[in-house]
Amino acid sequence: MPLGAIEAGGTKFVCAVGLPSGELLHQTRIPTSTPQETMERVVAFFRAHQPLAAVGIGSFGPVQLNRDSPRFGFIANTPKIAWRSFNLLGAVQRALEVPVALDTDVNAAALAEARWGAAAGIRTFLYVTVGTGIGGAALVGGIPLHGLTHPEMGHIRIPHDRTLDPFPGICPSHGDCLEGLACGPAIEARWQTPLSMLPGDHPAWTLEAEYLALACVNWMCTLVPERIVLGGGVMQAHLFPLIRARVRDLLNQYLEAPELAGELDRYIAPSPLEGRAGVLGALLLAAQAADSGKLAGG
Amino acid sequence: MPLGAIEAGGTKFVCAVGLPSGELLHQTRIPTSTPQETMERVVAFFRAHQPLAAVGIGSFGPVQLNRDSPRFGFIANTPKIAWRSFNLLGAVQRALEVPVALDTDVNAAALAEARWGAAAGIRTFLYVTVGTGIGGAALVGGIPLHGLTHPEMGHIRIPHDRTLDPFPGICPSHGDCLEGLACGPAIEARWQTPLSMLPGDHPAWTLEAEYLALACVNWMCTLVPERIVLGGGVMQAHLFPLIRARVRDLLNQYLEAPELAGELDRYIAPSPLEGRAGVLGALLLAAQAADSGKLAGG
Repeated sequence: MPLGAIEAGGTKFVCAVGLPSGELLHQTRIPTSTPQETMERVVAFFRAHQPLAAVGIGSFGPVQLNRDSPRFGFIANTPKIAWRSFNLLGAVQRALEVPVALDTDVNAAALAEARWGAAAGIRTFLYVTVGTGIGGAALVGGIPLHGLTHPEMGHIRIPHDRTLDPFPGICPSHGDCLEGLACGPAIEARWQTPLSMLPGDHPAWTLEAEYLALACVNWMCTLVPERIVLGGGVMQAHLFPLIRARVRDLLNQYLEAPELAGELDRYIAPSPLEGRAGVLGALLLAAQAADSGKLAGG
Repeated sequence: MPLGAIEAGGTKFVCAVGLPSGELLHQTRIPTSTPQETMERVVAFFRAHQPLAAVGIGSFGPVQLNRDSPRFGFIANTPKIAWRSFNLLGAVQRALEVPVALDTDVNAAALAEARWGAAAGIRTFLYVTVGTGIGGAALVGGIPLHGLTHPEMGHIRIPHDRTLDPFPGICPSHGDCLEGLACGPAIEARWQTPLSMLPGDHPAWTLEAEYLALACVNWMCTLVPERIVLGGGVMQAHLFPLIRARVRDLLNQYLEAPELAGELDRYIAPSPLEGRAGVLGALLLAAQAADSGKLAGG
């Protein structure tokens, strides 16, 4: 029986019906508006393709993933006011009456990278998306790392030399955390230019590579991933060599492993699933829910 | 049959014979000199208490923990030149002919904290020691996190405002990484005063709390541990409230969990095993080696 997959994003919901092999049979994109309007269209899409064995959701966050919480499956303290405290998992489960599995969008994407993408066969790695925000997921021994909450890797603090870069950062919670300095909207605000208008030799990219390299080094010292996969709209091809060179300089040969010798071409890798990792990961979550055969909560 | 435990440190080797319950029957401290001289005394201590079921070692680092490496069990690129490329695991195994398990000193200490200390019953947490260096260990689902290498959490980069703190840092590899700014010798070098001579209201402690709070926030955003246990010679009692207050400010309520409400008194906790965590953790490693009944390598 086919599976349902939802990549629930802040600007659009990508919904698909597919098979555990990763083959997508039907797909649609629904703009994110109010929860009621969005979910009506999401549910209508899946009802047209029933029966489904299960549905998986990779969601924007923060989202409550603690099964012991009465708010398990709820969107938490997001800047998108209409979605705050919305029971996303419950809404899908009640409407479709199938097992539903939920994780963050980045955790879902990391699962897809481990299965079909840049981290195939690797058990402990980091997946980071740099776009309208910055999010990170760690797979440890093949399983997405969940501690007290899901990670919020975009909000680490990194060195910010205000004489070189007086831009104060745009994170509403932290100002100049990594996301505040280096997400797509931060680049556009700093240089007063749309991303697509910044040429490859613009100083914006050297600065961006510096911030992302500092973040990579911090994540490496903390998690020692076997690979770092970087995706998202900001991660254009010319950024990779700049980031790799700065990571080498900043590490200064401190972490010793054959994978860190040389140019880091394989170690810091682009996502070959770009744009599809989220929905493919949601499909894997659905397959897990179908296998476990039990309701994931709600 | 009793177990052998070695906390292999840069200044001393603490050796003990004990039971899986944590009871220590015999204990000795051997100053760290050359590998040959040190190991002769270590081996003589354990020979006097044979038979032993197994020996566990929590070692200073960096140390090669990848079982697939021909240098598994070797001390790696340490500043202590005489110990570079020394086969610590092999030396103990050959001399005592028992199963030997090896991990880093901080990973061993974290295991002891999980069993008998500040993280008893907690599966995913962070143990950090702040002393002559800064080292961190993460237990994820009860197991020490090992990726490409063991973590080197002391070497993350944090914001360093050189107008407020012109001290350049003392890390030979990175200058002003966390360890370079905030380990014990860095504090003493910055203020030209021994740690024990710095009164509790000295500005050294506010600055130290700032750096450690920035590090805690970065580790929290990346690993979302359920608790952070801070130990080591620098972690005097008056530092804890300063660190907790700054972590609250820096997080700005971004991570939502009941454990992070309030004063963080339980979340950022001192180690009740202070000074004994390393050797107790080595005892747990020995128990694992005895249980698995197989040689850990060499």
